[in-house]
Amino acid sequence: MASLIVAAAISLLGSETVAHGRRFVRSSSYDEPCKEMRLYLHDILYDYSNSTSNSTSAAVTKPTALSTAVSKSGYFFGRMVVFNDPMTEGRALPPSMEETAVRAQGLYFYDKKEDYSAWLAFSIVFNSTAHRGTLNLMGADPLAEKTRDISVVGGTGDFFMSRGVATLRTDAFEGFTYFRLQMDIKLYECYVV
Amino acid sequence: MASLIVAAAISLLGSETVAHGRRFVRSSSYDEPCKEMRLYLHDILYDYSNSTSNSTSAAVTKPTALSTAVSKSGYFFGRMVVFNDPMTEGRALPPSMEETAVRAQGLYFYDKKEDYSAWLAFSIVFNSTAHRGTLNLMGADPLAEKTRDISVVGGTGDFFMSRGVATLRTDAFEGFTYFRLQMDIKLYECYVV
Amino acid sequence: MASLIVAAAISLLGSETVAHGRRFVRSSSYDEPCKEMRLYLHDILYDYSNSTSNSTSAAVTKPTALSTAVSKSGYFFGRMVVFNDPMTEGRALPPSMEETAVRAQGLYFYDKKEDYSAWLAFSIVFNSTAHRGTLNLMGADPLAEKTRDISVVGGTGDFFMSRGVATLRTDAFEGFTYFRLQMDIKLYECYVV
Repeated sequence: MASLIVAAAISLLGSETVAHGRRFVRSSSYDEPCKEMRLYLHDILYDYSNSTSNSTSAAVTKPTALSTAVSKSGYFFGRMVVFNDPMTEGRALPPSMEETAVRAQGLYFYDKKEDYSAWLAFSIVFNSTAHRGTLNLMGADPLAEKTRDISVVGGTGDFFMSRGVATLRTDAFEGFTYFRLQMDIKLYECYVV
Repeated sequence: MASLIVAAAISLLGSETVAHGRRFVRSSSYDEPCKEMRLYLHDILYDYSNSTSNSTSAAVTKPTALSTAVSKSGYFFGRMVVFNDPMTEGRALPPSMEETAVRAQGLYFYDKKEDYSAWLAFSIVFNSTAHRGTLNLMGADPLAEKTRDISVVGGTGDFFMSRGVATLRTDAFEGFTYFRLQMDIKLYECYVV
Repeated sequence: MASLIVAAAISLLGSETVAHGRRFVRSSSYDEPCKEMRLYLHDILYDYSNSTSNSTSAAVTKPTALSTAVSKSGYFFGRMVVFNDPMTEGRALPPSMEETAVRAQGLYFYDKKEDYSAWLAFSIVFNSTAHRGTLNLMGADPLAEKTRDISVVGGTGDFFMSRGVATLRTDAFEGFTYFRLQMDIKLYECYVV
């Protein structure tokens, strides 16, 4: 009897395994994601580093009228940056900033007058032996908070249709030349093979 | 018997309540979201208001070659604005534009040559006694329509993993200095405590 | 007995059909989306075409310091473009670039120093007899790959709360004046009437 019940429910959930199919899994607990990983993002802004080979991001806008008016150099209300940053499993910089198998590609901008606060939208592109595919993320990044949560809103390839939450923590901050972000990614909706 | 069936189905849905866990709820009807709220967004653009203390947004790009060529001042094809706007439950401006517990942080830009049309992506950041967490939204905002629907694509904190739809309505528009947007947010996928 | 089981499971899934309600459907297979369509996106950049009537996009940023420093004209690290592009079922250009019933509205930017790579976020706005509503998409677009997958992160109207994957393929590329993108959209989570 129990097996019949299970069969009926699975069919309704659309989680049956068919040819080339994937099975949908929803985590049963906040503490038990269906997939979890920690990655470090390394960002070197060209505008301060002046290194064409090592830099991984560039400011794409000029100072806004507002940011100039409030005169808090550094807060940059409206400053927008495009990045293509290497991501690593450990804290150390990768051997090459340009040829790392996992990369975060997207934009961030500052959005506060008298404090550091940012907003970002980006993709993590996996081209490693472990994973191929992408995760797409967006959310607010109020830097004054020790940790900030953003949304994993979708995925492709190995991360087909995934959803979850990523917790950001500033792990290193060397002026505007270099920062390292610890990213704890937890997926709670997965389509597994 | 019925309780056994329910138990089996719950387990498959991953909606069992464990320590620190949350239960997944999908609305059974378009008219009955699992969570609903109305908020008003207040936007004061620095570039027209010239108020450093009250302004909540700033143009981050210069007029594009296209917007200059079509000479429709105001339509601004390509004009991009970064905002950090207070949101309130009522229509009235908050006592302080800078210290409101609920804020919308993100960007919008105009994308039509001869009419007002915009696109936006932003987070609603809740820091109130009622809610802590964020909702992440994106979508097209064709201002000529009386109401426009955008997607709630994810959430964090109290809005962990939420999804839904937000309906936007321009509630006040005073030139480019001030506008107020009514936002009816309806969540249809919730993870409840 | 079986019908009782089904009833219990449906109730938990929230997929019962009520007044004005929609039923949630999750595809049971990667190869069998609950909704599928192929569309072509046509983009004419004003900055190269100089056509105010036919152009559908405009560069919104100036060359970044980084893109100038690496001197690879064309790769444009950080160049950002806002678009409002017609989409068609066939490859041919629509009769009018400005009055097409299905449009893609959003932004893309280039994010690589020595190769073409982009990132995009946009809405497909349907105003046709077949469909009314929107789909919201975002993801990385590494142009060197023959096909690229991005996420459909939400939808409204006929595409209420949809999720899926869109596969992009460059179908035509005439310098920077015109490109055509083939977009195969597959939805795996649908709310059907």
